[in-house]
Amino acid sequence: MADNCIFCEIMAGELPVSMVYRDGDVAVFMDIQPVNAGHMLVVPIMHAADLAELDEETGGKLFSVGQKMAAALYLSDLPAEGVNFFLADGEAAGQEVFHVHMHVFPRFEGDGFGFRFREEYFELPPRKELDMAAAAIRERL
Amino acid sequence: MADNCIFCEIMAGELPVSMVYRDGDVAVFMDIQPVNAGHMLVVPIMHAADLAELDEETGGKLFSVGQKMAAALYLSDLPAEGVNFFLADGEAAGQEVFHVHMHVFPRFEGDGFGFRFREEYFELPPRKELDMAAAAIRERL
Repeated sequence: MADNCIFCEIMAGELPVSMVYRDGDVAVFMDIQPVNAGHMLVVPIMHAADLAELDEETGGKLFSVGQKMAAALYLSDLPAEGVNFFLADGEAAGQEVFHVHMHVFPRFEGDGFGFRFREEYFELPPRKELDMAAAAIRERL
Repeated sequence: MADNCIFCEIMAGELPVSMVYRDGDVAVFMDIQPVNAGHMLVVPIMHAADLAELDEETGGKLFSVGQKMAAALYLSDLPAEGVNFFLADGEAAGQEVFHVHMHVFPRFEGDGFGFRFREEYFELPPRKELDMAAAAIRERL
C-alpha cells in the first residue's frame, strides 16, 4: 500500500466505493465520474504507479478481468451496445491517479462520447514513415 | 484465418505492413492512420471478431505485449511522454475492423488528441446511482 494513494485507500476499505469484483490480484469498482453509466475501473490490488511498475502477469489479468466485465455489462440492463477499454500511462496521456487502472466504458449509439484528433490525422502518412516508426520501436525491444 | 478479414490477410503476409513484433500468439504493427507517430495495433494472430470470441489467455497477452511496446516506445526517439491503450468492442464503441485489436497511442503534451464527453459528464452522480450500476453488473458475473 502506497502513501497518499486513493486507490490503495479504496482497496484497504478506507473510502466509500461501489465494488463490482475482487479477487487476490485485481479489483473492479465504479468510476465516480462515469463517461456513461456502468463505467468501471479495473485495478491491480498491489500498488503500481504505472505500466513500468506493473508485473506483466497482473497486467494480463487486468485485460482478462476486463473481458469478464464486458460480458457481464452486455448481459445487464445498462445501455451497452459496445465497450471501450482505455488506459492512460503518464500525465501526458491523461493519467490522474498514479496507481495503474484500466477503464471499461459502456458505449451506445449517440452517447456523445468520442475522440478529438490533431489536424493531420486525416492525411495518411506514406508507408516509409510507418516503417521508420516501426524500426525505431523494434530496436528498443 | 477468417474470410475478408484485413488483419488475417496482414498476418498471412498478403498485405503490406510495418511489423514491430510477432510471436506465436500476438503480432504488433503500425496503424496506417496514426493518432501520433508510433501508433501501434496489438493483435491476436488467431482470428477473434470481438472480446467474446477471444480466449482470456490471449486477451491477457495483448496487454502484457502492450506493456513491452510502451517500454520500447519510451526508450525510442519518437515523441512519447505517455501512452494510451485503447480497445473498441462493437460498432457502437467505434470498432471498424472485426478482428480484436488494442491500440497503443504515443502521447505528448499538446499533441491535440483527447476525448469529447457527453454534457452531463461534469456533474458527478450520487453514490446510490453508482451502487445500482455496480449491482446490475455484479449480478451478471
